[in-house]
Amino acid sequence: MELWYTEKQTPHVGITCKISRTLHTEQTPYQHLAMIDTEQFGRMLVLDGMVMTTVQDEFVYHEMISHVALNTHPNPEQVLVIGGGDGGAIREVVKHASVKKATLVEIDARVIETSKEYLPEISSALSGNPRVEVVVDDGIAHVKKTRGVYDVILVDSTEPIGPAEGLFALDFYRDIFAALKDDGIMVAQTESPFFNADLIRRVYKDMRRVFPITKLYLAAVPTYPSGLWSFTMGSKRWDPEQVEEEKIPALGTKYYSADIHKAVFKLPRFVRDLLE
Amino acid sequence: MELWYTEKQTPHVGITCKISRTLHTEQTPYQHLAMIDTEQFGRMLVLDGMVMTTVQDEFVYHEMISHVALNTHPNPEQVLVIGGGDGGAIREVVKHASVKKATLVEIDARVIETSKEYLPEISSALSGNPRVEVVVDDGIAHVKKTRGVYDVILVDSTEPIGPAEGLFALDFYRDIFAALKDDGIMVAQTESPFFNADLIRRVYKDMRRVFPITKLYLAAVPTYPSGLWSFTMGSKRWDPEQVEEEKIPALGTKYYSADIHKAVFKLPRFVRDLLE
Repeated sequence: MELWYTEKQTPHVGITCKISRTLHTEQTPYQHLAMIDTEQFGRMLVLDGMVMTTVQDEFVYHEMISHVALNTHPNPEQVLVIGGGDGGAIREVVKHASVKKATLVEIDARVIETSKEYLPEISSALSGNPRVEVVVDDGIAHVKKTRGVYDVILVDSTEPIGPAEGLFALDFYRDIFAALKDDGIMVAQTESPFFNADLIRRVYKDMRRVFPITKLYLAAVPTYPSGLWSFTMGSKRWDPEQVEEEKIPALGTKYYSADIHKAVFKLPRFVRDLLE
Repeated sequence: MELWYTEKQTPHVGITCKISRTLHTEQTPYQHLAMIDTEQFGRMLVLDGMVMTTVQDEFVYHEMISHVALNTHPNPEQVLVIGGGDGGAIREVVKHASVKKATLVEIDARVIETSKEYLPEISSALSGNPRVEVVVDDGIAHVKKTRGVYDVILVDSTEPIGPAEGLFALDFYRDIFAALKDDGIMVAQTESPFFNADLIRRVYKDMRRVFPITKLYLAAVPTYPSGLWSFTMGSKRWDPEQVEEEKIPALGTKYYSADIHKAVFKLPRFVRDLLE
């Protein structure tokens, strides 16, 4: 018997993956969580029926949500990751020697615990790293009570429905602005330009009301809807396109590089058009 | 009743699309051909169970297989498209004022005829354009009998199984080299770096044995396996990365631009690594 997992990525298109084994499923207080083993992508974390990460292609998303901001900031010491309970973004953050403390604020403890159990390659930085602090809390509440603390904040959220809805709102970007230091930078994952044009347009417009520098960049993630993913950066001072490439360190990455840092801001015309 | 079309893109992963209507199916002398109407991507041409093109996302592939080479060559006049019976590449080729003749050599007349009938937006240049010649013939045979004729040759093939197998071979690249003028350029579609690393590596190596300049570039095509697609360029003289951006004309494109022309050669590290 062949088992296939199918995610409807929109009401009209989906990805389907052959499963070798279902490792774990549960209803957490926040969402349905499944850990499955797929033939193509290895182990896969699925929340509310949406692929969050897989062992095979996670490097793209986790490198690209982290290193662009961390190499744009000249000296990132205090870094906050909101969401991202699988630990992949934090793993990339602590590759930067300048980082003194990387804080993960994830609302769902079960995401953290099951990732530690089933995704050791991805969650490795969540245990036993003295520079990493893991907090189980609402990211919105955490940011609201914080002022001028962080150099970089990464919003590694699920889709903008269910628990993550408030992470795509103007008020949240204002709170992030206040939680950042005077030259801080934020990056949020902002879905697919092929399937989520309206969301991208709205988030970009909202962030531009808050941050002096707002830029969108792209990366190719096979297991995400359409395969093309966007990230939106809000920056108080530093322009990611002005970084000197020679200053970008080698970090053992598989997708990101000094070249890619610059190239990802050159947007296909239809993406550039939807920001105007 | 909901109907979904599912393509197994590898033995372990697939794309599935909701169908509003099946417009046409047939077994041609070369392959199984289906024209279906999908909710997400509009009309879709499927050959041997693989998505070839859709009305919604065809612009990416057709612009990117054409304009990079046509803007790298300083004066492309004679252009050959091998395969590409849907007409999308030819439609982009004739946007260039310098092009005096664009020849399409497609082995399967039924692809041309059904594209004219069901995909008018894509096939528009195949009828009534005095600069376009449509030839129903084997691309390999056509190239073999041609010497020093073309400025640009585009290999717009299906996957390297079935009728297109010979379009991914060293001998074919040698014949293309001979069919090009002294400063000619070829581009071939070369599959996904996530799923077809071995093919990309082999084609790149083979082309490098034939052409002094060989470069790979990428574009995001949602309906193709993994969503990330590669093109390999072989050039006798002109380097696509040395083109002056100011000289690149506006061509009414939705993906390609002068910016994108340069950026697509900046490869993710894992892609760069597989070429070394």
